[in-house]
Amino acid sequence: MGDLLGVAVLGAGHMGADHIRRLDRVVSGARVVAVADPETDRAEEAAAGVEGVAVHADPEAALDAPGVQAVLIASPGPAHEEALLAAFGRGLPVLCEKPLVPDAAGALRVVEAESRLGRRLTQVGFMRRYDAEYLRLKSLLDSGRLGRALMLHCTHRNVSSPPGFTTAMLINSSVSHEIDAARWLLGQEPTAVTVLRPGPSSNAPDGLLDPQFVLFETSGGALVDVEIFVNSGFGYQVRCEAVCEGGSARIGDGHSMVVTTADGAREEVAQDYLVRFADAYDREVQAWVDATRQGRVTGPSAWDGYAASVVAEAGVRAQESGAREAVTLAPRPELYGFDDH
Amino acid sequence: MGDLLGVAVLGAGHMGADHIRRLDRVVSGARVVAVADPETDRAEEAAAGVEGVAVHADPEAALDAPGVQAVLIASPGPAHEEALLAAFGRGLPVLCEKPLVPDAAGALRVVEAESRLGRRLTQVGFMRRYDAEYLRLKSLLDSGRLGRALMLHCTHRNVSSPPGFTTAMLINSSVSHEIDAARWLLGQEPTAVTVLRPGPSSNAPDGLLDPQFVLFETSGGALVDVEIFVNSGFGYQVRCEAVCEGGSARIGDGHSMVVTTADGAREEVAQDYLVRFADAYDREVQAWVDATRQGRVTGPSAWDGYAASVVAEAGVRAQESGAREAVTLAPRPELYGFDDH
Amino acid sequence: MGDLLGVAVLGAGHMGADHIRRLDRVVSGARVVAVADPETDRAEEAAAGVEGVAVHADPEAALDAPGVQAVLIASPGPAHEEALLAAFGRGLPVLCEKPLVPDAAGALRVVEAESRLGRRLTQVGFMRRYDAEYLRLKSLLDSGRLGRALMLHCTHRNVSSPPGFTTAMLINSSVSHEIDAARWLLGQEPTAVTVLRPGPSSNAPDGLLDPQFVLFETSGGALVDVEIFVNSGFGYQVRCEAVCEGGSARIGDGHSMVVTTADGAREEVAQDYLVRFADAYDREVQAWVDATRQGRVTGPSAWDGYAASVVAEAGVRAQESGAREAVTLAPRPELYGFDDH
Amino acid sequence: MGDLLGVAVLGAGHMGADHIRRLDRVVSGARVVAVADPETDRAEEAAAGVEGVAVHADPEAALDAPGVQAVLIASPGPAHEEALLAAFGRGLPVLCEKPLVPDAAGALRVVEAESRLGRRLTQVGFMRRYDAEYLRLKSLLDSGRLGRALMLHCTHRNVSSPPGFTTAMLINSSVSHEIDAARWLLGQEPTAVTVLRPGPSSNAPDGLLDPQFVLFETSGGALVDVEIFVNSGFGYQVRCEAVCEGGSARIGDGHSMVVTTADGAREEVAQDYLVRFADAYDREVQAWVDATRQGRVTGPSAWDGYAASVVAEAGVRAQESGAREAVTLAPRPELYGFDDH
Repeated sequence: MGDLLGVAVLGAGHMGADHIRRLDRVVSGARVVAVADPETDRAEEAAAGVEGVAVHADPEAALDAPGVQAVLIASPGPAHEEALLAAFGRGLPVLCEKPLVPDAAGALRVVEAESRLGRRLTQVGFMRRYDAEYLRLKSLLDSGRLGRALMLHCTHRNVSSPPGFTTAMLINSSVSHEIDAARWLLGQEPTAVTVLRPGPSSNAPDGLLDPQFVLFETSGGALVDVEIFVNSGFGYQVRCEAVCEGGSARIGDGHSMVVTTADGAREEVAQDYLVRFADAYDREVQAWVDATRQGRVTGPSAWDGYAASVVAEAGVRAQESGAREAVTLAPRPELYGFDDH
Repeated sequence: MGDLLGVAVLGAGHMGADHIRRLDRVVSGARVVAVADPETDRAEEAAAGVEGVAVHADPEAALDAPGVQAVLIASPGPAHEEALLAAFGRGLPVLCEKPLVPDAAGALRVVEAESRLGRRLTQVGFMRRYDAEYLRLKSLLDSGRLGRALMLHCTHRNVSSPPGFTTAMLINSSVSHEIDAARWLLGQEPTAVTVLRPGPSSNAPDGLLDPQFVLFETSGGALVDVEIFVNSGFGYQVRCEAVCEGGSARIGDGHSMVVTTADGAREEVAQDYLVRFADAYDREVQAWVDATRQGRVTGPSAWDGYAASVVAEAGVRAQESGAREAVTLAPRPELYGFDDH
Repeated sequence: MGDLLGVAVLGAGHMGADHIRRLDRVVSGARVVAVADPETDRAEEAAAGVEGVAVHADPEAALDAPGVQAVLIASPGPAHEEALLAAFGRGLPVLCEKPLVPDAAGALRVVEAESRLGRRLTQVGFMRRYDAEYLRLKSLLDSGRLGRALMLHCTHRNVSSPPGFTTAMLINSSVSHEIDAARWLLGQEPTAVTVLRPGPSSNAPDGLLDPQFVLFETSGGALVDVEIFVNSGFGYQVRCEAVCEGGSARIGDGHSMVVTTADGAREEVAQDYLVRFADAYDREVQAWVDATRQGRVTGPSAWDGYAASVVAEAGVRAQESGAREAVTLAPRPELYGFDDH
Repeated sequence: MGDLLGVAVLGAGHMGADHIRRLDRVVSGARVVAVADPETDRAEEAAAGVEGVAVHADPEAALDAPGVQAVLIASPGPAHEEALLAAFGRGLPVLCEKPLVPDAAGALRVVEAESRLGRRLTQVGFMRRYDAEYLRLKSLLDSGRLGRALMLHCTHRNVSSPPGFTTAMLINSSVSHEIDAARWLLGQEPTAVTVLRPGPSSNAPDGLLDPQFVLFETSGGALVDVEIFVNSGFGYQVRCEAVCEGGSARIGDGHSMVVTTADGAREEVAQDYLVRFADAYDREVQAWVDATRQGRVTGPSAWDGYAASVVAEAGVRAQESGAREAVTLAPRPELYGFDDH
């Protein structure tokens, strides 16, 4: 398909380093030409072995490096808005890790800026849309074979939460994946959120009210419930059951090997999202590279990033109030059709 | 174990007839000596082939028939209170189909009457406590191996609702099984109920708001959610996942045969509760006969029947109010310890 | 259904004691009136608590005890032939634990004796025919929905072999269950046997060549393979996959509860055949009692017992020769149609 | 990792075209610089859209094209030997689709030629070694957690056989995958083969004796059985259960979505090997490109290709003789250690 796409990667932390490896060694058609991180040491480390890459402390310098044709933003959330606007200013296509911008107000500014450009430049990193199981479920729901979706039952469990994880992050960092997945699967916007919770697990750090049970009502009359349990101790489990008028479909209980010993028949449970969604990340970045080389922008849009932020903010309010909280979105700019993926 | 237990069966409808067959041909140690139903024709039909049985229109006449040592009440719910009190008056042990009494006030009168007797005579027909899968889950939770239970996720689906099924019956006829199962599995009382629902399925009869999603909070800080969907169209599915501090356990997805054809790999789903819980009914009645012949009363008590009614009434209020409704139980008489099963 | 069937139980070992308990407390319509065992102490123990039972050292004395209407033979295999002929002499219906008679020549004498009577008196204790999973598979195969059966893949694993278990017993004690199940499922007779084996497991006792892999060819052109592994260490697993022209069906991998912990998602595996087939034994004896009270004889016949012995003997020859051994059955007496079950 | 690896692809049929697409658009680090096929039309079609590629009728011309650094052989099996020797003559690393060479004698000539070079140039396209499930099983077996492997039970089913498929191809085209997988999983060489079969399915074309049941004995005393059924009608199913002294492990029954409708709970079964093993092909070619760019040769060797041919030839003899046929391998040249993968 011609020359390799030159990519600048902003952020060389855990996720940024993984994307640099992916662009360099897994994905076809791209090369990393610039890496930026205020901690240039870790930028150097992440870029080691990549031929012809330039390392910068300053993101804008990376964007202006020779050969840069597209940007992958993997810096911390608070740096996203400025990076996105800088990319927009240069007309560079962007793959932006979630969240688009941590707060809904900032996300809306990004949406408005992109709208003023009159064309999409942004794909947001909701990688579940590229997971084989989610794609199969989406395809089944879209086929209409099961009729209208009535409920989604979702489970989202982690082994344990990282240091500094807060009760609000249960919603705006973890459940945000289910928010996007539900919007995408149903083609509907959440309209209200209620949060209930049992007494916290004794395995949760002091002050972290984990697990919780989050319920979304949607514009199309569906109900979405999510168990979020980030200190489950027993694995990284992401499941989704769609209950429809004509049947139900469930993903996330699949397995590839059953081992039987005196302890019973056992299936492995993935312990980590980078393992569970490794293929989804690969497909996500490949899809972005392919589309960008063809001059197209696909996948979750800035609007999707904004909507996820608004819903998450309502969820955090519902955590605090114990009551049902309404979700109010700004009018959707013309640029963003719902089903532009 | 000596002579057969003489049983009077009150009510010869679908369930009564099934119990007559069970006592006559499946269960060891009992015989049906009297059957009562205002429609004596169907009583005669249900009793056909049972040797030495007397058929009555009047329940009290059946209780007074020669050889009656115990009573199985399978008449319609509104007739239960009078039948229970009549049995109490004669000191007869009772297996009473659910509901104990349809309304909580009547159920409380039964509890008080039995309390005045100073000894239990009543086992309530919550047959799930005798199902092999539920027993396995109960045993696991009681073992403490998974730690404290935080959440129960329950699914209760029927193919279609019978004529006359009302929105309130989603709670007080269907979810009442989950109410009892949750109380039994957790050893905790529900304290509040919230009901949410998606737009009703187009397969539900006009005016029936089906499916619904019911959430119980409990005295021990657990959260119980129940999907009730009585017009699912796709089978009789009863599932329960207990999420605990140290792991989770799920029942209701078991299967016994996988058939693979060009249509994929397929497992059968039971279409009917009499099929799904056939063994549970057999075990329930056998346990009642065995205990009764030994002069003991075990299983779900009148208090369990009362508590289920109170919680169901709160649930129906929550359906109507859309808000969280508190559950208030009368003080528990000394006669009823929580774990007398 | 009238008076209880009076049963004499011959043999009060592990299996006999279990059947006495079953007839007394589980099955409907029967009572144990006589128990015989040369070790009268264990006969007394097994009969304890059974009302009105007489204990004998001599089987014939038990058959002649007052009230005996039917016989359940659970004595050691070598005693079966004499007991069966004694029952035939008295016209008593028999449920005979497997093997009918350990050697094919003795089994044939029983078949001939019953044939001379001109009516069936014998049901052989191949309990798998009463297991819910096997019944479902049988029903599916008989329905014709999957077309002609081409292969059966069978697995038969025990945790460990009891003392005194020999290499020949892998076939004539363990695989004999698959021999009967395959004949019943397919409605075909085995015509040849080949046995292959890997190097024995180090968990097998010295000299026991365990596991083995046994292949049967049948009169209808089907192929049946059986892994027999009696020191697997990991459970009692009985599986069967039928591969047909139009699809395949598999039983024996079912489960009723999945427990997920840090060790993965785990299903229990039964450790013992009395657990795995508890319901099958109950149903088998109930079916025998029901049929006997109605004057009928159903289930696996003496011919089925004889055929299993012949095939097992060919299997033992194949173990020793390493070659394909033909199976030769005597002509089938008119009394025994293939599908009399 | 520097410049892209220039690859010549020989053969532009179904498989060759798929590899061209894979090298161009999926795999990182390679580009297709030459394509050869006697039918230049289909070579042109397969190369369409690939920038800077030259199309040739003659394989040797393609090998000599500018920029060629490595060769992927996807031409028909009979052309492999000449192509391999031509690559050896030029010192070019090769990924050669299976079979290495169709007949064992030719495969041995290739092994000897490579041995004379004194270094490996060849990776054979046994892609199952790159499948996630097989890799997981291999890793478990190598860990020693389950102890010594005693048996492998394998299933290999296709929907239907392509035109011209012969009975011998059941072994040398289909079961050859299991031959390689078993050698790799066990680290043992097959020593004898026996083939049994039921009457053929009526869905098999006239004269094709399908299905068959193939048994391999190995140098380490393990037993490998394979059901091969290429006209199963119900899907592309590849399963493998390893039975070990301390437990068993099974792959190939995994699934990613369960759909429940009135027809039961259903999992999809892949219909095609390109779907089932799509990821394995991608990983295989990526591993080859990565190793080649680093100057290394990994994966299944020419010796593995030769051994598979020898075992397959014994299998075809066993089909014809109905007897146990011994497998005799030439002495293994020093170049090939068993575990060089």
